[in-house]
Amino acid sequence: MTAVTSLALFTTACSENKQPNNEGDLQAIFPKGNLGPAENFTGNAWNTPLVANDSTYNTVVGNVYFEPGARSNWHIHPAGQVLIITAGVGYHQVKGQPRQTIRKGDVVKCPPNVEHWHGASPDTGLQQMYIISNTEKGIVQWLQPVTDTEYNRK
Amino acid sequence: MTAVTSLALFTTACSENKQPNNEGDLQAIFPKGNLGPAENFTGNAWNTPLVANDSTYNTVVGNVYFEPGARSNWHIHPAGQVLIITAGVGYHQVKGQPRQTIRKGDVVKCPPNVEHWHGASPDTGLQQMYIISNTEKGIVQWLQPVTDTEYNRK
Repeated sequence: MTAVTSLALFTTACSENKQPNNEGDLQAIFPKGNLGPAENFTGNAWNTPLVANDSTYNTVVGNVYFEPGARSNWHIHPAGQVLIITAGVGYHQVKGQPRQTIRKGDVVKCPPNVEHWHGASPDTGLQQMYIISNTEKGIVQWLQPVTDTEYNRK
Repeated sequence: MTAVTSLALFTTACSENKQPNNEGDLQAIFPKGNLGPAENFTGNAWNTPLVANDSTYNTVVGNVYFEPGARSNWHIHPAGQVLIITAGVGYHQVKGQPRQTIRKGDVVKCPPNVEHWHGASPDTGLQQMYIISNTEKGIVQWLQPVTDTEYNRK
């Protein structure tokens, strides 16, 4: 009647001489996961599925760790998407709007059928959970890569 | 077309002499939030809403910080609930089943209309996000407190 998925932990050492901006400093909650395919991501984006789609919850949840400079392609969620930023610094942009800087503790709602991309800042990675509910409407439609010009435009 | 909710950050100092199990050690991602009402919780449970219910997402997301020993009442979610444990150690129990220990990185799915409770362990607090989708079916029905005997039964 209930399921607990135990995921191996990344423990982060507390050190006086730690290096800034590396993965350990981002206080990873979940395993690093699987490298996202190059056809959908620029740079290294690691995906850990947390909740698989089913007919009870109609919801997909997961975590993505974007290495510095990594970002998704432009894409659309037919049912919308919520991002929960748990560590680091990154960007989110809706097509035709200014790029937004997103940080630990931010919550981003991107409405259904709106073209957007998200990823890490150039110097600091990003840990972000994604929540897609109402998956009966669809999950994701991948589009073209985010060019360096688009990525760097404020 | 998009909204970023910036939430004040709890920064956690890195110290050689830190005390175990306190709030800082739980690496809070979100503000501490509002104290949950005594009619629904035993001990101190702090709630930070992250996503309010609406007709687009039909989803409620938030974070609860349970202080050591704090727990919810027994309760039911008509649409089920997903818990994402982001720090600390706690318990989750479905009525009639053994108490489960839950830790950082765990994902708990509690199906619709199943009586359950969750909270912190006696010695270590718990940071947990909750996700309730399909909110058109309802969000929560609160029931009786979890007695000390129930809380301590393994």
